[in-house]
Amino acid sequence: MARQAILAALDAAQSVLISSHARPDGDAIGSMLACGMMLEQMGKHIRLVLSDPVPLIYRWLPCAELIDRSEWIDRPHDLALLLECDSIERSRLRGLDAARVVNIDHHASGRPFAAINWIDPTASAVAEMVYELCLDAGVRVTADMATCLYTALLTDTGSFCYEGTGLHTLKLAAELVELGARPTRIAREVYFSNPLPKMVLLGAALSNLRVDGRLAWLTVTQNDMKRSGAAEEDCEGIVNYAIAIAGVEAAVLLRELPDGQVRLSLRSKGKANVAQVAEAFGGGGHARASGCTLPGPLDAAAASILMKLQALL
Amino acid sequence: MARQAILAALDAAQSVLISSHARPDGDAIGSMLACGMMLEQMGKHIRLVLSDPVPLIYRWLPCAELIDRSEWIDRPHDLALLLECDSIERSRLRGLDAARVVNIDHHASGRPFAAINWIDPTASAVAEMVYELCLDAGVRVTADMATCLYTALLTDTGSFCYEGTGLHTLKLAAELVELGARPTRIAREVYFSNPLPKMVLLGAALSNLRVDGRLAWLTVTQNDMKRSGAAEEDCEGIVNYAIAIAGVEAAVLLRELPDGQVRLSLRSKGKANVAQVAEAFGGGGHARASGCTLPGPLDAAAASILMKLQALL
Repeated sequence: MARQAILAALDAAQSVLISSHARPDGDAIGSMLACGMMLEQMGKHIRLVLSDPVPLIYRWLPCAELIDRSEWIDRPHDLALLLECDSIERSRLRGLDAARVVNIDHHASGRPFAAINWIDPTASAVAEMVYELCLDAGVRVTADMATCLYTALLTDTGSFCYEGTGLHTLKLAAELVELGARPTRIAREVYFSNPLPKMVLLGAALSNLRVDGRLAWLTVTQNDMKRSGAAEEDCEGIVNYAIAIAGVEAAVLLRELPDGQVRLSLRSKGKANVAQVAEAFGGGGHARASGCTLPGPLDAAAASILMKLQALL
Repeated sequence: MARQAILAALDAAQSVLISSHARPDGDAIGSMLACGMMLEQMGKHIRLVLSDPVPLIYRWLPCAELIDRSEWIDRPHDLALLLECDSIERSRLRGLDAARVVNIDHHASGRPFAAINWIDPTASAVAEMVYELCLDAGVRVTADMATCLYTALLTDTGSFCYEGTGLHTLKLAAELVELGARPTRIAREVYFSNPLPKMVLLGAALSNLRVDGRLAWLTVTQNDMKRSGAAEEDCEGIVNYAIAIAGVEAAVLLRELPDGQVRLSLRSKGKANVAQVAEAFGGGGHARASGCTLPGPLDAAAASILMKLQALL
């Protein structure tokens, strides 16, 4: 039903804004770009906006240069597609009118905050939903679109490894390759083109790895950031090295921010729901991946979060 | 033709030995186990032998406990299936008779050293060839077999990222899931169940990461091994962090062995053929992944290999 409502709304719209969450990931970028190309085929005026820059590893994607960085909606639009957001705030865009927003999300934590809400937690990525939308709209999925969608699917499933990966995921991946996506080229750009500082930072973080029972944690200080020359986006994925340890059921990366606050990335591979913990500190996310920000210093933040996590396990 | 010859030879055989290379990887283990289950369905007496132990992350695979560790063939057999080997020596097994060996390999460096040789460099993994053999033999691919084959495919393609991954790879992955392989369960066992020392060792290796132009290298000393408590198999994959850096076209991990020699793992993502370099030092492999052993000390080995690689780039 939501899909039909979305298609009807798109039919009626002339100008469509497309956005996603702050600190965009591969699914945000890839799905936005594919949406944009779909709507261009449908003859719409489109605008692609994000509050943060496109991470380096996604800038080679077709049309990535069309994504504007802005926190303000300065031009009118008939409709806004907001991907992978559980609220308008998550986009960090000001000036969005909920009455004109279409919310497309695949997270179990998705909420119906918009005029039209399509939330499908069985989808491996929003890319899977965008692909279905293309089929419904009778839009031809070009090789460029397939490349964007495959990149989204690959990165959001952790190379087809995370929970939620299933037969439909692999079948879609195969279909996208048939349509022109090149899996090894995409993997090379996304996984084998890391900036050197990212690897140096990973080494520094791993030298601070601690494990206590089923809990593992890593820290990244401002000093680590400076010495490695790493950017904020280079911290992405570091916490996965802690959760990837045998016997560990919950993991956290504690990252000192320039203003002295501490950003936490939480992961779970057991029954622990780390979204609960993040929410208790004003953050959010999913049962197995969530985040929040605590006041510094690092040691105090570590003590608070580790106590909460120990209680959970 | 080779496939028909293999099936005819299997039909005529009563007892079949199955083996693969020393330091076995996921494709070696997964394909051996699936072969074993295929031959049991065909009513054969089978024996699974490897010269090295099954790495920890593959011990949960169905029937993995049936793989014997031995360097001697102490019992007679009618036929031996040797997977992923470019020679009998690669298996480090003594007592194998080439006249009874069937060589199944997907490497471009594969060589026809056996009585029957089936070398298909278009296959993403030997698992893909074993699957075809099952279909040809009319054997039902059980959920256990699909699990072993999926594990082999997943690990040998670096989660569907390495060169050689294509439509056929993803289609096969989907088929194996339809037959009962569970992608997230397999990924959890293989990628998210690392021993803690492996992560500590990775941190130590990354702290020794060096980049010079298009060349990157990492070192692991005996001191690193002792301090981290890591096992030899924990070094697997470390070199990939060096080749995954933007602009790097060739990478090497130099690992000090207990006897003072230095084991090298070479990777290329450009045009450089690192098999040539490995072969010049008495080793072998493929254009993009090879290995060899040099005399110590570490510094001297590093100087030799870096000079060779610089000349290549």
